[in-house]
Amino acid sequence: MTTKEIKELIPTRRLLLGPGPSVVHPRVLRALSTPLVGHLDPEFLKILDEVQHLLRRLFQTDNRFTIAISGTGSAAMEATIVNLVEPGDSVVVGVNGVFGTRLAQMVERCGGTAVRVEVPWGEVISPDLIEGALNRVGSVKAVALVHAETSTGAFLPLEDIGTLCQQYGALLIVDAVTSLGGLPVKVDEWKIDACYSATQKCLSCPPGLAPLTLSEKAVNTLTRRKTPCQSWYLDCSLVADYWAEDKRTYHHTAPISMVYALRESLRLIFEEGLEARYARHTLNRDALLAGLQELGFSLFSRVGHHLPSLICVNLPPLFDDRSIRSILLHEFNIEVGGGLGPLAGKVWRIGLMGESSRFEHVMTLLAALDQICAGLTHSHPQGKALAAANTVYTLSRTSL
Amino acid sequence: MTTKEIKELIPTRRLLLGPGPSVVHPRVLRALSTPLVGHLDPEFLKILDEVQHLLRRLFQTDNRFTIAISGTGSAAMEATIVNLVEPGDSVVVGVNGVFGTRLAQMVERCGGTAVRVEVPWGEVISPDLIEGALNRVGSVKAVALVHAETSTGAFLPLEDIGTLCQQYGALLIVDAVTSLGGLPVKVDEWKIDACYSATQKCLSCPPGLAPLTLSEKAVNTLTRRKTPCQSWYLDCSLVADYWAEDKRTYHHTAPISMVYALRESLRLIFEEGLEARYARHTLNRDALLAGLQELGFSLFSRVGHHLPSLICVNLPPLFDDRSIRSILLHEFNIEVGGGLGPLAGKVWRIGLMGESSRFEHVMTLLAALDQICAGLTHSHPQGKALAAANTVYTLSRTSL
Repeated sequence: MTTKEIKELIPTRRLLLGPGPSVVHPRVLRALSTPLVGHLDPEFLKILDEVQHLLRRLFQTDNRFTIAISGTGSAAMEATIVNLVEPGDSVVVGVNGVFGTRLAQMVERCGGTAVRVEVPWGEVISPDLIEGALNRVGSVKAVALVHAETSTGAFLPLEDIGTLCQQYGALLIVDAVTSLGGLPVKVDEWKIDACYSATQKCLSCPPGLAPLTLSEKAVNTLTRRKTPCQSWYLDCSLVADYWAEDKRTYHHTAPISMVYALRESLRLIFEEGLEARYARHTLNRDALLAGLQELGFSLFSRVGHHLPSLICVNLPPLFDDRSIRSILLHEFNIEVGGGLGPLAGKVWRIGLMGESSRFEHVMTLLAALDQICAGLTHSHPQGKALAAANTVYTLSRTSL
Repeated sequence: MTTKEIKELIPTRRLLLGPGPSVVHPRVLRALSTPLVGHLDPEFLKILDEVQHLLRRLFQTDNRFTIAISGTGSAAMEATIVNLVEPGDSVVVGVNGVFGTRLAQMVERCGGTAVRVEVPWGEVISPDLIEGALNRVGSVKAVALVHAETSTGAFLPLEDIGTLCQQYGALLIVDAVTSLGGLPVKVDEWKIDACYSATQKCLSCPPGLAPLTLSEKAVNTLTRRKTPCQSWYLDCSLVADYWAEDKRTYHHTAPISMVYALRESLRLIFEEGLEARYARHTLNRDALLAGLQELGFSLFSRVGHHLPSLICVNLPPLFDDRSIRSILLHEFNIEVGGGLGPLAGKVWRIGLMGESSRFEHVMTLLAALDQICAGLTHSHPQGKALAAANTVYTLSRTSL
């Protein structure tokens, strides 16, 4: 390769229906291309205020500490753990997929003890199981749970966990990477102490920032640490001084263009309205599921716990994972996700997040799969999947 | 504030002549607004290859491990330290400004011992001082130095340090945040083992990514660690598996839009050519300095060690830092940087980095300051600063 061979950037246009990044709205792309002001410019500090305001609304919280970490979702996961967990602390971690596993690893990397509450992937961790661990361990610093498991498409009901944690004096840490903006995340009502997400999922913003909110109790925990936070870059006590309206102390240079994009994606969310947005995600999931089942896919996650934002399905018997995803990508320009870890080759993860969750995208994907199925078997009943999905949409119109 | 009050994003257009972010070229802004492909899409993986190729050329290295960290320059500083330093290791750190101080703090946060070699801010750390520390301490894991101190505008010659480090079996870590792309950074020739930078300085790309290159010796050091890297997000052994052509193992979602922007900013650099780019930075610095001296500014850093990319100057007696920077920002839409730490209120840091380093920007800033000076004293010799700068340009044209 020579430098001259590296030409103008003209990537193929893809329909992003994987587990993130999701489709980015043209208005967000336009915001990205806005010329920059400095990270300490009064105009940019006002933009930070606005982003904080919108993030608080989205997290449904009054938490003063509500910011965007300068990194991806995994950076916010790490920020949460390294700030709240000190060497020797025990953390109960719910593990039913890749991201619970990652949480436990991060607890261990900062010298904590991860008490894993494991259930099979795709299953739901009950409050009883968590209470059992809390009883068994004795002194627990925090309970860390994944609200929406991106590896299995299952969500975990959180309504009762916060009160349980308070009874045991433990902080509640929630990974909302694949839920925030696609289904309700009620930080204050559910008594969550630390909740983080990522921009490239249901917020439909490019990857590179990670919203994070901390309760007063969590902030007190980090300001009263016995040992300094092992990370300087992710030290929330330092980062907070930049985001605080009355301080604005320079810490690191904020990713200005990404903040512009996040602001615009949040504006789009509130123009639509949270309830309408959640309903849209649910409707499109239901329509896609109806179609996929006609094509021979079956659901991986437990009934009643399918995410509206990410559908994890077992492949039909005749489907070869790699070759059919390759056809989808190269012939139809559609990206869907494969399985992670033990689910590789067995499931697909289809994201209907933010701008990806649209009627036309559901029908496009089903039409492509319908053509592929017709090529696999002569007996394929063409059009049935499309009809099943469209029936869901028709019913939703008549029920208005 | 209500969500409806948060209107379309239309920031004022600023001329960014602070210590970063620098002016971003319209082609880079356009690249940012390119619709996204997935982070595991074959087209994106090819883009990563291209970015690696261009970064190697820019760092002047053959290092296989040459990537962009998903964070700002401080994230790359932290990545370098937490991967190469284990608890109990001693690291000799050159401290002559804010960023050397930060390096030492990071060494300490990961359980290492920082042996500070301190000289007054703006002064140069001699090889003798470093050798003295190497002799004193005995077993030293690494020597960490800041090539271009963003807080003082001084650069450190590195030609002789690499051989010295090799003699003592220490790795050489170099912070090239404010030098890469503005003055030569010769990783292989100077025997540097770890070198990192940031996108928002001389690369003229928005903040959010941080180039990092590691020598084979540094890679061996991290693969042979006795303890796991304390950070999961910045663990280079995991990150490397995503960037490696033959692996591409998912670690975290790369900041796709920012990678697009970095690719375009690197393309612009090689269209101009490295030598031409370095010469441009030097010429514009010389012209600005000639003008600033006529206005009563004096240089902070030592003669012969002024950075071509960032000029740190003491303010003239009549200049009030805050009020005059405020006039520059609000009346002229020009941003320059104030002093950090003990230099606050005393110096300005004027960045001429990448797209900010242009003839027209130098003349614009000097013209604005000339008007301000005329308002401060009746005896101000209007036009002299502009003439001095323009003479530098004229001489450079006749010497062609």
